[in-house]
Parts: sequence; structure tokens; C-alpha cells
Amino acid sequence: MSIQDEFSFINQIKPTTVHHEKTLITGIGDDAAVYIPSPNQSQIICTDTLVEEIHFTSQTMSPFQIGYKALAVNISDIAAMGGNPLYYLVSIAIPSSWSEQDLIEIYAGMSELANSHRVDLIGGDTVSSKDSLMITVTVIGETEEGRQLLRSHAKSGDVVFVTGTIGDSSAGLELLLSKGRHGTFNSNEDFLIKRHQYPNPQVKIGRFLSKLKRVSLNDISDGLASESNELAEASQVTITLNANLIPLSKELVSCDSEGAIEKALFGGEDFELVGTMSMDEWESIQQDGRLQNLIKIGTVSSGKPEVLLQLENELITLEKKGYNHFKK
Amino acid sequence: MSIQDEFSFINQIKPTTVHHEKTLITGIGDDAAVYIPSPNQSQIICTDTLVEEIHFTSQTMSPFQIGYKALAVNISDIAAMGGNPLYYLVSIAIPSSWSEQDLIEIYAGMSELANSHRVDLIGGDTVSSKDSLMITVTVIGETEEGRQLLRSHAKSGDVVFVTGTIGDSSAGLELLLSKGRHGTFNSNEDFLIKRHQYPNPQVKIGRFLSKLKRVSLNDISDGLASESNELAEASQVTITLNANLIPLSKELVSCDSEGAIEKALFGGEDFELVGTMSMDEWESIQQDGRLQNLIKIGTVSSGKPEVLLQLENELITLEKKGYNHFKK
Repeated sequence: MSIQDEFSFINQIKPTTVHHEKTLITGIGDDAAVYIPSPNQSQIICTDTLVEEIHFTSQTMSPFQIGYKALAVNISDIAAMGGNPLYYLVSIAIPSSWSEQDLIEIYAGMSELANSHRVDLIGGDTVSSKDSLMITVTVIGETEEGRQLLRSHAKSGDVVFVTGTIGDSSAGLELLLSKGRHGTFNSNEDFLIKRHQYPNPQVKIGRFLSKLKRVSLNDISDGLASESNELAEASQVTITLNANLIPLSKELVSCDSEGAIEKALFGGEDFELVGTMSMDEWESIQQDGRLQNLIKIGTVSSGKPEVLLQLENELITLEKKGYNHFKK
Repeated sequence: MSIQDEFSFINQIKPTTVHHEKTLITGIGDDAAVYIPSPNQSQIICTDTLVEEIHFTSQTMSPFQIGYKALAVNISDIAAMGGNPLYYLVSIAIPSSWSEQDLIEIYAGMSELANSHRVDLIGGDTVSSKDSLMITVTVIGETEEGRQLLRSHAKSGDVVFVTGTIGDSSAGLELLLSKGRHGTFNSNEDFLIKRHQYPNPQVKIGRFLSKLKRVSLNDISDGLASESNELAEASQVTITLNANLIPLSKELVSCDSEGAIEKALFGGEDFELVGTMSMDEWESIQQDGRLQNLIKIGTVSSGKPEVLLQLENELITLEKKGYNHFKK
């Protein structure tokens, strides 16, 4: 890396505009950031790390995409709580093999997504790494007091829903691993790759869901099987998914019709939301046109905390065998 | 590492007691943590990363000490804003060479310091690393609205102070690098080593300072020279330090009388505080016995933003050449 000075680098990545000017007292440039919380709002906070060679490689992601995704996965966690993201901090450990231009691209990728969600970069840390690049993003958001959407909110009789097609990201990753990101792809493949490289955090739907009476919610980072199991465990209910109802994109089916359902269940990194709400609420939003992009994929019943999958005429138990870093 | 499952590991390090039970809605175990901020308080947030082979090695720090220090350096940033630390999140990237017992020790080290400051672990991320262990801690604190102690608050006529002896940590590190942490040390050396391994965040003094009229403040992570320069730059003032007034521990002088002042100026990682306040305020707290452990080391004057050091009969310019990761 050609960076001469941590301080000059920080000046380069310091944002030039502030979205939350009235409440942000101090951003980058002091020991810590200071902001004034909005009245009657709970604070939501999460942190996620991406590590080179574990979560991405130079073959699968450009520096811009790494930055974009590192922020996206965290904003997705805020969305899964029904929250509105406001601020973020970035800790980055940089090996000498990365150029200054690469680093600026990483921050440009974060900045693009940050601007579209009106999220301000307010702090972080920049350190050296011996080997791999590692990027840890922390996002702070808010939601109305008592309105957070927990995994434990599911009840017997609920409808299980997702917010979009599942399995695309996993198929995109497979393509990237086989051909590299500079390979030649048809338009279906290109769609799947973009789904892997540019996850779209579902903040708008999360905010809509936070206005409903009772919603359990999780974002799909580790595959539908794993995330559904987390809902079942946290709520102590049985979740039954119907394989025929799980939404698969035409692009996924066209590229990999046989493997599509497995990718949806175990692939991960789709960053759509999976959740539950009461049948009454479901019917009400269906009737009044507020259904948005929600797709019903199953039901909740009382019973032992597990996830069952209706697959043709078979009912199988769906293990929590999604993406688990230690098992990779 | 012998960890079979990320989920079971998280269960092991999940805190069993909660210090902020009334305001913490959701800690570890959902997509994000949720808490209710205290009325009329600003939120303070910071994040710092420690990387194996860069910030510590197995020769200099035990797993317990690594955890303790990773949290301490962040609580110190909250202290440097005059804040009260409340919550923390931990992202850790773990190479396979680390045992599960080592990891549990890291969290035990954090937990010990967290309990003494009544800070709750509320979230984080656990990922694999190819090579080095990396640990990123994020701490959230609060301070009364408008009371944060910024670096930009210094004014001409101010007294410059520190909260304790400087240079000890750097001397301790030197000893550790030469003999290793299992070496034999005399009691003076042992004091210096502890100062390196167990930094003591000055939250109590930071809180006291936040009640005064106007205080500029910085924590000493990168050496007194670098931190004083940050105050001078942020406040656009000249800071003059008197070398004879810089407090050196008897242990440091006894181990390294010649190198002591250089360690104090450029060594770093003392995690004492350096700041300024008006002469009037200084005299007032001195008279009414509220001086606490503050030690006067210099004065602030108008002029170009720089730091001068009065050294015997010489006045030299003190460059910002403290600990800078990229220059190491």
C-alpha cells in the first residue's frame, strides 16, 4: 500500500455531506462520535465483519463491491429489526498488498449505498493487517420505542412470508467462483451475480412491517433453513414451509433449475427478510393493497421448535445447516 | 480451533448478568441490539481494532489481557469525551490456530473490565480468519447533551493537564518484547508491564471534567506528542509543554531514566487523558480540593497550531510522530 499516513487517508475518506446534520454533533475526527437520539426512539445497533478469502476474494468482488456489501449486510440487520439506519462506523485492517486506490474504492462503495439510505459515516479505525483485508462495519439505527421486530414474536396460526426471491446470491457466487468476476456472463447469470455483489437491504419493507401489530422478522444472511430455524427457536413454535411457495427468480431457475431450491434453503446471503404475522393481519394487508412484495411461504403452528418442509408429498425436517463460518 | 459451532460458542460467551436491565431491550441473539437512550443524553460511539502481530503478540499479551485491552482502549475513547460507557459489541476474526479456551479467555478479559465499568456486551460477530486474530470492539456511551469534551475546545490562556504518569506502557512493551511475558521481572518492571497489559480507562476523571465549564480532551493512545498536536490542530492554538512537568513514574525512571521522556512523548498506549481548561477553572478546582489526579504540564497560547516543548533552556517543536500504524 502506498499510503504514507493514516491521517491523510482518513481525510480522503471523510464524508463531504452530512445527512443528519441537526443531530450529529461530532463525526470523524475526535475520540468518538456524538449524536443526539430522536425522542421516543429506541437505538438499534449491529456489527458485522467481512474477511478476505473467507467472505470474498478478489475473484468474486471488486473493492467497490466489498465496501457496498460490508455496509449492506449491516443495514440489512437494522431492516430486520424494523429500524431506520442513521449512522455507520468502519474498522478496516489493511494488508500492504492493497493499494490506496483499492481502499478509496471500498469507501466509495459504502458511500454509494450510504447515500441512498441517508446514512452518515461517523467514525472508525484504520489499522494494518499482516495478511487478509478485514472490514468491520457498525450501523446504528432507530425505531419507535417498543416497535422492534424480534425473532421471538412468532405465534401459532401465523403466516410465514419472505420479501423476495431466494437463492440468487448463492447461484451468483457459484458463477463467480467458476468464471471469476471478469468472466463473460449472459443476462440471467449477470442478474444472479449482481444479487451476490450488491445485496439490497429491505429497509422500506422493514419500516412498513414495524407499523403492524405483531411481526417476527429475520434477515436471510445464512439461508432460509437456518433463518427459519432461528425464528422457530426464538419463538418456540413449529414452522412449516411449502417448497412450492418459496419464490425463485426466473433467472435462477433458468440457470440451475435442479439446484434452485437447495440454494434457496441453504445458500444464504440473499438479505431478503423472512418473518411471520397473524393470519388476520395478513388478510387485512392483502385486502387493502398494502401487501407490498410479501410472499407467503408457510405457516406457524404450536409444537416443538423446528422447521418442516412440505416437499411434494413428503414432510421433511429442515436442519439449521445454512452458512456457518466455523463449518466452512 | 476446536469450536464445532458458532452458535454454541456464542451461547458460552453470552453474559449472564445485565447491568442496564431497564433500558436494554434486546442484547445478543437477534439481528441487532436494541436499547432505550436516557433522556437528554447524547450518544457517544467509537470502535477500535487490535490485530495480532501488529498490536499484540502471544509473547506480549495473554488472551485474557488481549480481551481486557481491546475493551479498555474503547472505553478510554468514551472517557476522552467525558462520557459514561454503557454497552459494547465485539467482532472477532479467529484463525484455526487459536483454541476455544483462548477465545473464552479473551471474552473473560473483556468481561472483567466490563463488570468494573458496568458495561453490557450486547452484540457482535464471530468469523474465521486465515491468519491473524483480529478483534474489533465498539462501545456506546452517553453524556449530558452539549457536554461532550472535544479536542477543539482549547483556548489561549488554558492550562494543559494530564491524568497520570506517561511512558509506562511503552517501557512495559519494551520489556515484554525483550523477555517475553513469561520472563522474570523485578517489581518496577512488573508495574510497567501491567501498565501495558491492563490500561485503566479514566472514566471517572472524564465524568468529573464534563461538569466543568469548558474542557478540551484527548486520550493518550498515540503518545503525548501526537495527542497534544491533535488538540493544537483541532483548536488552532499553540501548546507549550514543559518537559520537567511531565509526570514520570518512579518505576519508569528507575528502569530507564535516559529514555523516559522520549517514551512519554512518543511511546503511546498510556490511555491517560490530556486536556486543557481555563486558568480560572484550574485555580478554582485546585482551591476547592477537586483537583483529583490532574497534573499541569503546560499552557496554551494563540499562534500557529503546533506543540512546543520547553526542554531545559531549549524550546523545540514537537512533531506528531507518535504511534502511526502505517509508519510502523
